Amino acid sequence: MGQDLVIGIDVGGQTTKCGVVDARGTVIAQTVIRSDTYTTFEPYVAELAEALKRLITEANAEGNIRGIGVGAPNGNYYTGNIENAVNLTWGGTNIIEFAKILSEAMGGIPVSLTNDANAAAVGEMTYGAARGMKNFIMITLGTGVGSGIVINGEVVYGHDGFAGELGHTCAVRHNGRACNCGKTGCLETYCSAIGVARTAREWLEMSDEPSLLRSLDKITSKDVYEAAKEGDKLAIKIFEYTGTILGEKLADFIEFSAPEAIVLFGGLARSKEFLTEPITKAMNANVLPLWRGKVKLVYSQLKESDAAILGASALAWEL
Amino acid sequence: MGQDLVIGIDVGGQTTKCGVVDARGTVIAQTVIRSDTYTTFEPYVAELAEALKRLITEANAEGNIRGIGVGAPNGNYYTGNIENAVNLTWGGTNIIEFAKILSEAMGGIPVSLTNDANAAAVGEMTYGAARGMKNFIMITLGTGVGSGIVINGEVVYGHDGFAGELGHTCAVRHNGRACNCGKTGCLETYCSAIGVARTAREWLEMSDEPSLLRSLDKITSKDVYEAAKEGDKLAIKIFEYTGTILGEKLADFIEFSAPEAIVLFGGLARSKEFLTEPITKAMNANVLPLWRGKVKLVYSQLKESDAAILGASALAWEL
Repeated sequence: MGQDLVIGIDVGGQTTKCGVVDARGTVIAQTVIRSDTYTTFEPYVAELAEALKRLITEANAEGNIRGIGVGAPNGNYYTGNIENAVNLTWGGTNIIEFAKILSEAMGGIPVSLTNDANAAAVGEMTYGAARGMKNFIMITLGTGVGSGIVINGEVVYGHDGFAGELGHTCAVRHNGRACNCGKTGCLETYCSAIGVARTAREWLEMSDEPSLLRSLDKITSKDVYEAAKEGDKLAIKIFEYTGTILGEKLADFIEFSAPEAIVLFGGLARSKEFLTEPITKAMNANVLPLWRGKVKLVYSQLKESDAAILGASALAWEL
Repeated sequence: MGQDLVIGIDVGGQTTKCGVVDARGTVIAQTVIRSDTYTTFEPYVAELAEALKRLITEANAEGNIRGIGVGAPNGNYYTGNIENAVNLTWGGTNIIEFAKILSEAMGGIPVSLTNDANAAAVGEMTYGAARGMKNFIMITLGTGVGSGIVINGEVVYGHDGFAGELGHTCAVRHNGRACNCGKTGCLETYCSAIGVARTAREWLEMSDEPSLLRSLDKITSKDVYEAAKEGDKLAIKIFEYTGTILGEKLADFIEFSAPEAIVLFGGLARSKEFLTEPITKAMNANVLPLWRGKVKLVYSQLKESDAAILGASALAWEL
């Protein structure tokens, strides 16, 4: 008998990352398969199960896998299903019994599933910046804005399993930006990587202010970061604007669940040297006096390349 | 040995209501003392303990009191203390060890304490509209706007014991109304009884629209309700405005915790014939499609005269 191990699986639109993880959060072995080769679920899950079996052999972990955790778009923790995941080629408007079918394909190893932001929160609590915390809110600043909320040491799933959609709370009530979800003014239209690029394009068009960004064809949030590092004033103001909007909404979230900390994660969080100050300032200006200066703002401590696997794997320890 | 009973105490700025309650939520005996006779805590708690002992005798409940639950402004569930309750004559900026001192004065009967809105939520879950629900949000629409949030069958107290201040989340970001808390644009400046009266005063001043409210000296939310019942168009529009702002914020709250229901309670909730439609409309227009039309909007089922005592008493069953 070897040590207890778990498997973490991060299902993305293009790729599915899998890893065997130990109790300390070390990824012992990992592999990647394409998510978008098939338009139906059956051949995808067959390929996934094959990949996992090879991985287990490679890690010399036969018989030691305690469980499998999966982070997936629209993943429902209660049912183990993926529901209406339009970004997955085999997702569509179907209900995919992901956890059940994968468990069967893996000879009965239990499978736990949730969405990627909730998985990230569990990962941070198990191995990262939120170790020992019972109450925190994880905000993932990626292409979109996701969230995983932990209260009393447990992820909040809500009545239906889909709680924690803070990226779609309203940041700008009137004349807000159109969001993919069909609403307007959602936090993620301002505070995601795409939102930052959108702000840059809008502002360049609105003013004649000189900026390094003007020479670029297609602006990404990374370009805005690079420009800010060069001292570009417009780029720095874009991060101030982004951080202020995020901080204002974080104040609302604090008034909801009184967390010990807000944990930021994702590609955009790498711009922390320009985001931390405006976020902190707006958060403290907009929160009730009793929380002013008291709620920590921290950044993920998981290595970015491993984070998605680790987050998903952490779910499996709870099985 | 008689049946198990509990005591509920509702500490308000002017009066303190106390009652002996059975497991079905019947108030067997009740009494009221003044809260504002003393400027220090000791004589107040001595008078309170005397009143409770008489009440126990009157209810023939000696030896049967399982616990005492207290709803009080700024009550901290974790510590049992009342902290910085400026609305209490003996509160001030002190930390009052309410639960500990009352328990000692009552011969060691355990005492549990929280703020009034959290107590109302526990009351609704134990005896009222939220029976059987594990996930709901209680909004109290009184002089201010309070909230009690229940997730997985438990009230959310947060890291420090003060979670659930939804009345101070931001409803109007720019040029919002000044709130007693020191911030601007708080939900409670629009959707409380005082907020409704404020809207009425502002609107009467801003326009020449005829209204029954013009004949009144000092307008209360009750006046606005009476006028709306008479078909007064301005009064009806005031409720539409109030309900819309509340519904917009409820959408945010749903995206946080995905509750089964929103439960409304308090004086202003009596105007439900004018509030329900705008609240529901705004809530569904602003929430993600997956929750549209799915989250119930219900009203408290507790008799108003008993509700505060019942809410507090419900806490004691959890001791």
